[in-house]
Amino acid sequence: MKGKQQSDRLTMQQKATDGVIGIFDENAQRHDKEVYNTSIVTMARLEKEFPMLKFRYRSELSKQEINEALQKIDKSLGQTLFVSNARIKPDGGIIEVKDDYDNWRVVVVSEAKYQGKDIENIRLGKLVGKNNDQVLMAAGNAIERAHKNICEIANFMLTEPYFPYILFLEGSNFLTQNITIIRLDGSTYTIAYDDGTLNRLDRLTAANYGMPINTNLCENKFVSANGLTIMLQAASIYTQGNSEHWKAEDMIEIMLDVARTSLRMIGKDLFHQLTK
Amino acid sequence: MKGKQQSDRLTMQQKATDGVIGIFDENAQRHDKEVYNTSIVTMARLEKEFPMLKFRYRSELSKQEINEALQKIDKSLGQTLFVSNARIKPDGGIIEVKDDYDNWRVVVVSEAKYQGKDIENIRLGKLVGKNNDQVLMAAGNAIERAHKNICEIANFMLTEPYFPYILFLEGSNFLTQNITIIRLDGSTYTIAYDDGTLNRLDRLTAANYGMPINTNLCENKFVSANGLTIMLQAASIYTQGNSEHWKAEDMIEIMLDVARTSLRMIGKDLFHQLTK
Repeated sequence: MKGKQQSDRLTMQQKATDGVIGIFDENAQRHDKEVYNTSIVTMARLEKEFPMLKFRYRSELSKQEINEALQKIDKSLGQTLFVSNARIKPDGGIIEVKDDYDNWRVVVVSEAKYQGKDIENIRLGKLVGKNNDQVLMAAGNAIERAHKNICEIANFMLTEPYFPYILFLEGSNFLTQNITIIRLDGSTYTIAYDDGTLNRLDRLTAANYGMPINTNLCENKFVSANGLTIMLQAASIYTQGNSEHWKAEDMIEIMLDVARTSLRMIGKDLFHQLTK
Repeated sequence: MKGKQQSDRLTMQQKATDGVIGIFDENAQRHDKEVYNTSIVTMARLEKEFPMLKFRYRSELSKQEINEALQKIDKSLGQTLFVSNARIKPDGGIIEVKDDYDNWRVVVVSEAKYQGKDIENIRLGKLVGKNNDQVLMAAGNAIERAHKNICEIANFMLTEPYFPYILFLEGSNFLTQNITIIRLDGSTYTIAYDDGTLNRLDRLTAANYGMPINTNLCENKFVSANGLTIMLQAASIYTQGNSEHWKAEDMIEIMLDVARTSLRMIGKDLFHQLTK
């Protein structure tokens, strides 16, 4: 599925629900676990779609390995390691493919972040804040930590012309449309998506250079400035802008879409396997 | 002061204290405020050292302005803004200089992060943890948020050949040498700098591609890979590796060092002012 089609489909899904929420049964922990499960399914689908290729899944990547990738580019890079077993663990893990030269190449990396329980709280009529007198909980900034793993994987893939990093967002801090919530007592409350108290999407868009969200940005963009050609490694940020729970099948479709882009980008290094 | 000299001087200071801490009187809030004050002094020093140039200080940068900088490079960038007044506020603010063409150019951006109170706790004999029975507090990961502003400023300066971003670190989560603490009762306790419970430096080094810390990395490095020239925007990460409190004068010297590098890197755009 192309990025634009994907984006259109998500928009249609959002419109179909009309932004009215009745049920809300999600939490951050479950969201993390689901992205792991969807990765496993995604790998199985890739193995079926590309039976001539060999894939592997791993849940973590050591700083040592990231350092070695950097050192191959230039000896001055990847020199520091303070805790010997330091590692990163994107919650959806890392799917890789073996290329024609026996190197494992990254195909898709995913993380899922849930932040903002306002819709659930409002539905239940639960007030929040220090004095339990506020409808909305001022959003935190923990989501900014997401940039760390994006930066690590970008370094690990610094010489690759693609960057298959997917960030799945969910919760009232990542809305892209106004939401009307029906309380248990039948009354309604509307959250404006652009309310600065809640929306934290702007804390993440540095990771995609302000390019559109809900779009496959796996293929690196090259721009020119002052005689330089600059390669942009942009994370693909997908949000449930209507605060609905991510459906596993939607996540898998997005992961497959990004994975196919990755495979195409390294097609010349998979050529022998693809044609034998 | 050159990066290497700076690095040597810091190492000497660290050795001079022998890693034994008697007094510890620092907290995160004070650390933040101090980096603001040192920025103001740094600007005054720059105005004195370069009286022909015009500097300005500002405490924040709007996402709108970052978006505009990205749009100038390519129309597809800098397109998203969810909260209209979204902005970033590096705690040391931003010092800029006016170039010959009336454009303000970034000269230095600084942030100060304090994390880890173990040394203070040990000195006072205070046990920590859920049951108040641990000597060391497992370090948190809030520091990972530091990548966000680094990423924002890197985008803002994507076409510049330099990146004057300084991160000043302090606290028991950023040690680079073992520390022996003398408790109030005279007993001692030694913290190993590479203890994974405490050390969080590896959570930050993606921001400088694993290049040395305590080094001025303001001038961008260019590396080649697969026929591409890649420009690296690396943050200059300085830590008080012996857990001592940052001295204002040391921070100012580092800021001036980075600022001078910035001015040199845009020398051709300051030429008329420098020579008139």
